[in-house]
Amino acid sequence: MHRILPLLMVLLLAATSAFAASADKPAMQLADDLTLAEAQSVVNAALAFSAKQGVPMNIAVVDAGGNLKAFFREDGAFLGSIDISQKKAVTARFFNMPTAKLGAAAQPGQELYGIEVTNDGLIIFGGGELLIRKGSIVGAIGVSGGSVKEDTAVAQAGAAALK
Amino acid sequence: MHRILPLLMVLLLAATSAFAASADKPAMQLADDLTLAEAQSVVNAALAFSAKQGVPMNIAVVDAGGNLKAFFREDGAFLGSIDISQKKAVTARFFNMPTAKLGAAAQPGQELYGIEVTNDGLIIFGGGELLIRKGSIVGAIGVSGGSVKEDTAVAQAGAAALK
Amino acid sequence: MHRILPLLMVLLLAATSAFAASADKPAMQLADDLTLAEAQSVVNAALAFSAKQGVPMNIAVVDAGGNLKAFFREDGAFLGSIDISQKKAVTARFFNMPTAKLGAAAQPGQELYGIEVTNDGLIIFGGGELLIRKGSIVGAIGVSGGSVKEDTAVAQAGAAALK
Amino acid sequence: MHRILPLLMVLLLAATSAFAASADKPAMQLADDLTLAEAQSVVNAALAFSAKQGVPMNIAVVDAGGNLKAFFREDGAFLGSIDISQKKAVTARFFNMPTAKLGAAAQPGQELYGIEVTNDGLIIFGGGELLIRKGSIVGAIGVSGGSVKEDTAVAQAGAAALK
Repeated sequence: MHRILPLLMVLLLAATSAFAASADKPAMQLADDLTLAEAQSVVNAALAFSAKQGVPMNIAVVDAGGNLKAFFREDGAFLGSIDISQKKAVTARFFNMPTAKLGAAAQPGQELYGIEVTNDGLIIFGGGELLIRKGSIVGAIGVSGGSVKEDTAVAQAGAAALK
Repeated sequence: MHRILPLLMVLLLAATSAFAASADKPAMQLADDLTLAEAQSVVNAALAFSAKQGVPMNIAVVDAGGNLKAFFREDGAFLGSIDISQKKAVTARFFNMPTAKLGAAAQPGQELYGIEVTNDGLIIFGGGELLIRKGSIVGAIGVSGGSVKEDTAVAQAGAAALK
Repeated sequence: MHRILPLLMVLLLAATSAFAASADKPAMQLADDLTLAEAQSVVNAALAFSAKQGVPMNIAVVDAGGNLKAFFREDGAFLGSIDISQKKAVTARFFNMPTAKLGAAAQPGQELYGIEVTNDGLIIFGGGELLIRKGSIVGAIGVSGGSVKEDTAVAQAGAAALK
Repeated sequence: MHRILPLLMVLLLAATSAFAASADKPAMQLADDLTLAEAQSVVNAALAFSAKQGVPMNIAVVDAGGNLKAFFREDGAFLGSIDISQKKAVTARFFNMPTAKLGAAAQPGQELYGIEVTNDGLIIFGGGELLIRKGSIVGAIGVSGGSVKEDTAVAQAGAAALK
């Protein structure tokens, strides 16, 4: 009985959630899009890793549509990285690859040289990683505040929470 | 001893935090600005109230400088309210009053009519509230996703977590 | 008595200033943020240095939140540098380092290549310097109008007024 | 002799100033445009009036070309008024009338209804005043931070310094 009650509550919540279509009101979000609960687990994993690493970060998560789902700025993190962390997440999802990979193709002499001026500004260095659930891209995480290596490590720690 | 240990850890954390000035590295954040821990308590209080109210919301928190500190979008909340919630928080802090109060002065025939086209777009209806800690404005919360009444109730529930 | 009177006046001014919290009205500015008096001393030191150097400059000062606090354009200074001087100050504060240092990391082949398209445009050459008061970053100064060397010299002369 | 020396120094300064055309270098600023010295006297008069009035203000001065020449934000003044004060000065100069006068023509039902969305945002309420030197418009001052009446009083006090 004690084990069944929580399960019932979860089912009840699901039935009344924003996903539930009804005659009156269509579902507001794709059934398999990133949920806030998932985004929170991603952000929290990123925060935990960042705390150990010791460099304050901006951490942003976007959903499958590339729209902001969650964001945290740690105390003392760069103000300029509010924008960069969000752009990293958007860039990763917009091109379905880590920002570092897009960046490699955007260097002088490479075939996507100059792409960063599109889409109101893309980020062409590391720190944006895809969020993949069971073989499907459901969003992305962008992290900014330290070196590219530090940013990437936090982003990957966050992304790993979803898999 | 069990009571002292947590206190020591807090002091140790404080000593190594982003606020701590040192010979090598200046403090990156003003000592009395909004902290992430505070922003999280504000956002969580807003989320808890919103869950009870049953209308999915976008919830944004900015610090004393008007820069984004935390953001969550509940499942099914309006995508258009990502921007509105953030602009509500910015508007409240930029004019040191709830957005509803600014809105009253911005109606046709009132003295601030037309103010909304400044600052890349202000919000002149309710849902933005100040965050005040011990008599000092340290930021603002902006909520968007339901009626103005519903948005305002969530914003006020969030703001109350700080006082 | 003659020495006490000025002190009393300072205390009186402080008590009635924008920082003073009261039952009616919360403090509008964080107690340790850059003051206008400080910004003026920074700008005036920059102007004095610039006058000696002989190249007309745009001089901008932002506070800890990256918001404009003071600005002067010398006669004959580049109109295009109104924006650049302000962006230099914002860039320095947004990344807590002189713009020259950020610029070194943003060159082709370096790890922040492309960062300048974020935040509505960053400046990745010299002329933006941090304003540091007692080990805490309280803002930044941006100077534009001459060569990078000339701009930097004026910015550093301004920043030195605060230390 | 004591009276002649200062005059000689002024003439000497003028000859080496940014206004002075030479074979090598054309003059960078119109001979009769607003000078920084004038802008400073305008801003200082506005600051002095504002200090007496007791409401912290943002004060912006633009030259004949509508480009920013001087700016000060008093401690505790609205962050949202950085933009508004500058837009007030630009609006006044762009239409060669106080912003209050333009605003009257921009009300619902009036012939310039909607004009505020042009020019990246105009201000259609009081607080922007022309700077006139000997019958010629040489710039404008914009003030924002209090009620329209308070803003206008400070702007007019500043403008009066030039006449």
